[in-house]
Amino acid sequence: MNLLPLNHPMFAARTLRSFARSPTFSSLSPNWEGGVSMVQGASRGIGLEFVKHLLENNEKGHVVATCRNPGQATGLLELKNKFDERLCILELDVTNETTIKASAKSIEERYGSLNLLINASGILSIPNVLLPETTLNKVEKSSLLHAYEVNAVGPILVIKHLWPFLKAGGGSGTEREVAVVANISARVGSIGDNRLGGWHSYRASKTALNQLTKNVSVEFARKKDPIICILLHPGTVDTDLSRPFQRNVPEGKLFTKEFSVQKLMTIINNAKSQDNGKFFAWDGQEIPW
Amino acid sequence: MNLLPLNHPMFAARTLRSFARSPTFSSLSPNWEGGVSMVQGASRGIGLEFVKHLLENNEKGHVVATCRNPGQATGLLELKNKFDERLCILELDVTNETTIKASAKSIEERYGSLNLLINASGILSIPNVLLPETTLNKVEKSSLLHAYEVNAVGPILVIKHLWPFLKAGGGSGTEREVAVVANISARVGSIGDNRLGGWHSYRASKTALNQLTKNVSVEFARKKDPIICILLHPGTVDTDLSRPFQRNVPEGKLFTKEFSVQKLMTIINNAKSQDNGKFFAWDGQEIPW
Repeated sequence: MNLLPLNHPMFAARTLRSFARSPTFSSLSPNWEGGVSMVQGASRGIGLEFVKHLLENNEKGHVVATCRNPGQATGLLELKNKFDERLCILELDVTNETTIKASAKSIEERYGSLNLLINASGILSIPNVLLPETTLNKVEKSSLLHAYEVNAVGPILVIKHLWPFLKAGGGSGTEREVAVVANISARVGSIGDNRLGGWHSYRASKTALNQLTKNVSVEFARKKDPIICILLHPGTVDTDLSRPFQRNVPEGKLFTKEFSVQKLMTIINNAKSQDNGKFFAWDGQEIPW
Repeated sequence: MNLLPLNHPMFAARTLRSFARSPTFSSLSPNWEGGVSMVQGASRGIGLEFVKHLLENNEKGHVVATCRNPGQATGLLELKNKFDERLCILELDVTNETTIKASAKSIEERYGSLNLLINASGILSIPNVLLPETTLNKVEKSSLLHAYEVNAVGPILVIKHLWPFLKAGGGSGTEREVAVVANISARVGSIGDNRLGGWHSYRASKTALNQLTKNVSVEFARKKDPIICILLHPGTVDTDLSRPFQRNVPEGKLFTKEFSVQKLMTIINNAKSQDNGKFFAWDGQEIPW
């Protein structure tokens, strides 16, 4: 991990607020009071709501929000106006590893540690490109590969490049004992719970994300890193992702972003070491693989 | 389904052996006594052994063996010399959908129906290209996508294009009540059973194959098609695929191809409708997702 240059704009604040109080200052692991959280896929939907929740409910915490086009992320720019230096917006496209590395570099230079990583990006449908399949006859290789690249490969590469900073951060500065990686999965990624079929590309990509997350959790545990990985099913939330399919949602089962994120943050904030590698629904119930 | 042209080389045999006895002749569903089986990925390893087993243990059954380079498939060519017209070798590369369609077309013209499809192709490692990952730090996007394309996408596209012929075949001409699709998976694809981590690309691709197979099984059941899909874990078998990793296999746990295929064929031959969508190990035990 690099030390900040002395003329770095964050240096003064960092020294005053954090380094001076950190019990681990001597080991060069920075301790940010309130912690540093990153939300990947933060321009809209659940991701944007996580950023808002984190800034509003933790008056000292810092948040890194990443998205593909920061200049067009009006929701994030509004939050930036309000929360200023506690919010850092970075460009990150999970299908472009160069942008993942660049974000990791920025986080290294600016904070040096990370306490929470929420991978919230995901695709279900793209008009005229990726349509959730209603039958095997409509399954196309291009859709399977595209969903896999965005929903499964992307989040794992983000964890790979942020790993050193999560390890440096652990639970320090937060009320948790460990750093948390929370990957937004979906109940339809469960094989055991698959009663309806369909949505092949989306389902398989989320199932693979579940396996990859479990895999990473095993390695973190074996290395005794102060990090746990969990998978979260947010319920069906009223976002752009679910909008084309909301007419099939039973009454009362379409959640607001605020409700879902409130529930998921409760799970994240209460996560313990023994939760490493588990898959939780919004209500805290474990979902079968 | 097309009818065979009258001058087709298979026509005489087909009429004599099958059509005349078929209860469904009038519906144009051909009934091949002994059935028609297809083994995809048949040039070596478990796939080749399945072809040999099917030809040797069912004196009337026909077998379609597919592989990427039939001209170099010496094992298949030896079987062709011995079993002649009961073995049909076709070129099929699961990463090239054109070859999948061409094989489906050949099967339509030659047999018109299929009673068993075994997807046996799969990759674990390719020297200097794809190496099973020992840590998250070694996970590469190219490896994740390549394993997914071969191990998960490929078999599902094969099922997609063979579906009409499996539906036409069902269990007719065999001792089974339904047509069987058997996808060769692996215990390391189980999320619930993942205790060691590593092998990210291979694991995630097999987990996704499990989900996609389950998904297809749900659709077949809903449509009341006379087809079931099962997933099979062959154990660790002495093949080119496992060779680089055999030193870690406990004594007595490295199976011969003959032993593993004998066990898997017992599962296939005894498969019933209620087994649709299940994941079995070589010994018949169900594996958790």
